Formats: sequence, C-alpha cells, structure tokens
Amino acid sequence: MEFTLEDISDAEIARRRALFEPLTDAVRGLIDATIRTEVDDDTIRDVQQMIADATDRLRAAQIDGAYGVRYTADMQGMPWGNAVIGVRNAIAPPLRTVRHPDGLVSTDFVLGAAYEGPPGCVHGGVAALLLDQVLGEAASADQAPGYTGTISVRYLRPTPLGALHSEAIIVERQGRKKIVRGSISDADGQTVTAEGVFIVPKTWEGPMPHSTRGAPS
Amino acid sequence: MEFTLEDISDAEIARRRALFEPLTDAVRGLIDATIRTEVDDDTIRDVQQMIADATDRLRAAQIDGAYGVRYTADMQGMPWGNAVIGVRNAIAPPLRTVRHPDGLVSTDFVLGAAYEGPPGCVHGGVAALLLDQVLGEAASADQAPGYTGTISVRYLRPTPLGALHSEAIIVERQGRKKIVRGSISDADGQTVTAEGVFIVPKTWEGPMPHSTRGAPS
Repeated sequence: MEFTLEDISDAEIARRRALFEPLTDAVRGLIDATIRTEVDDDTIRDVQQMIADATDRLRAAQIDGAYGVRYTADMQGMPWGNAVIGVRNAIAPPLRTVRHPDGLVSTDFVLGAAYEGPPGCVHGGVAALLLDQVLGEAASADQAPGYTGTISVRYLRPTPLGALHSEAIIVERQGRKKIVRGSISDADGQTVTAEGVFIVPKTWEGPMPHSTRGAPS
Repeated sequence: MEFTLEDISDAEIARRRALFEPLTDAVRGLIDATIRTEVDDDTIRDVQQMIADATDRLRAAQIDGAYGVRYTADMQGMPWGNAVIGVRNAIAPPLRTVRHPDGLVSTDFVLGAAYEGPPGCVHGGVAALLLDQVLGEAASADQAPGYTGTISVRYLRPTPLGALHSEAIIVERQGRKKIVRGSISDADGQTVTAEGVFIVPKTWEGPMPHSTRGAPS
C-alpha cells in the first residue's frame, strides 16, 4: 500500500476535476441506461461497439493497474479512483462528504437503479459499502489515522432507492481504538445503522495528510 | 418491494443473456479505462460525447425506475439489475456464485481498479458489499427466505486487488434466526471474515422461488 506524490497546483487539480467529472458522470448515465434500456437487439449491438471504440480511445494511454491515492506537495488528497468517493470512478455515486466542526461527517446523495438489491431498494451491501466510507472518514476526523478493525451493520428496514442521507461521528476512544457510529436515513428516518472499531497504528506519531481516508478535496 | 413475473422461456432468457452480457462487460471496460486513462483533454471530451451518444441510443426506450427482480413462470430468478450479481449492472463484478450440496455458497472473482480503496487494495466497503451478497445467498440456501438483520465484518489485513475467493455457510439456526459465516480470501488465506444474522419472516409458510436473494440462474 503506497501513497503517491504528485506535485501539482490547485489550479491544475481544478482543471483535471473539471475535465473528469463530466466524463465520469457520462459513464454513470451509461451504467444506468444499460440496466434500464428496452431498445432492440441491433441497437444494443451497435451501442456495444460504440462503447468498445470509446474505451479503446481512452486506453491509447493509461497507467498500469489501479489509480491509487495521490497527494499534492501540500498533502491535498486525490483519491479519484476510490469506489465510493472517486471523481474518476463511475461505480462511486460519488459521495461528497462534509466534515463539521464537531467531528460529524455527513453526506446527502441519490442512489438510482445501479445500487439495487431487493426490488426498488438499496442493496444491503451497498449500504454497508457507503457506511464503511462515512464511518472511516469520521474516524480520521481527529487527524489520527485509523484502519477499520470491524464494522457491524444493522438493517432496521429496507432502504428505498432515491434521496438519502448518511452521517457518522466518533463516540468513544479507548487507547488506540476509536468507536464510530453512523447511519443511513431516508425522509422517514434511519434505515440502517452501523458501528465501527478503528485502530490507530502503533507507528503513528504525528500529523497526517488531510483525508487519509480519501475525503474529496 | 415487489417481484415481477415475466412469462418467458429458457431460450428467451438465454438469448437476452447473450445480448446483455457483452454490452455490460463493455461498460465495465469503460469504467476501468475512465479511471486509468492518460489521454489528452481533447480526446477526453470526444469520448464523453461518444458516451453521451451511446446513452441516448439506449434511452430511446427504457423502463421507468430500477430493474427490479423478475421471475419467470417457473420461478427462475433474473436479478439482472443487482449491484453485486446483476448481468446488466456494470457496477457488479459480477459475482457468479455456486451452491454446493452441503449449503456452502462460493465464488471466485477478480477485482480491478474500480474496486479500490487504499492504494492497490480492495475498498473495505466493497468487501462488505460482496460479503452481504454471499452471506445472503448462503442464508437462503435451505430454501427458507431470510432478510439480513445484522452483518459484522472483521478486517484481518488489507485485501489486494486481483483474484479473490469468497464463501459462506449457515452455521447455526435459532428459531427464526439463521447465523451465517463467510470470508474473503486471497492466495495467502483469509483477509476479511463476516458473520450475519438473517431472519425468516413470520409470514413465511412454504416453498419460495429459487434464489430469493437473486442468485444468478
């Protein structure tokens, strides 16, 4: 596991973000359309070829392997490949988390057809996926890094697809352990709650880069 | 939450699968390329337009909302929008699970750049996402449906991106509760373990459709 340093300016980050956000959003739209389309077989095959052509053009120059988590010289994080918050990852909704002064991390987001499990509802595992990220960000809100030891997710009732909210906060510290609690809610209240135990590594002795959990910058 | 009946033949299912699997695989390739590309800005903008055009063609006719879980008249499941196993969902790796005679559910799969959290490693939440599905399928391997009450995930060490294995099995029954245990492993052994408590609804009184958890047919 290694973090990568890229010595680029804030302006360059903004330029790349403005370039990649619309591309990734376009791919998100395509994922949704692939699930919901009812066009005829010939059109499906044509579109498949269009996608293969688009992919070939992107692959004309590409990095080996995964994106990683990159930092600028002033330690601004660019976790753009991250499966939950990645600006360049079309699997990510993406969550855009907000850190509040009291340590609460919160996010409002909308989940569509691509996140379905039971009919019309969010896949239980997707709820766990998102909570892992939100709890992890809350765990590092005090600047001490933490890796996830365990996370327990309780399903109160099905979570409908649509507009949702999630939040988490550290509720207890025990030596190198931090206990974090969080939830997902719809307009009628909580649907899923979670508790995570995060561990601060023994080797940690000082300040860390912002957003070691990869919060969007 | 409703299940949908579609009275189609096995041959028609096979035809649709042969049509949609390559389309969805093409979209998976595009997701990967969007994360890893290093082409110039003009190419990015061209490709964005290509994707928008492809999406428009698919959206010329589409269902309202999410895909749902559909069943044929003989109760064969088509959870093709499912976020973990969906044939038409490019977010899904997809997992292809195998049910063994002893009730074990197992799957071998490969995770690439789109499933990253820490650099080079599987996002902890992605591990939870996949385990929720695998444990859920194991929970319904005895034909009694179960909904997830809680799931607890323990991270033993980082899970590298690449070839992985997951499995789960019912380990205990207590009245309407079923306890299921499972894990994810790489070539060196387990990286993540999970335990889930699944509840059989009070209203359940008889046989269920195959794969209420949406196992691929």
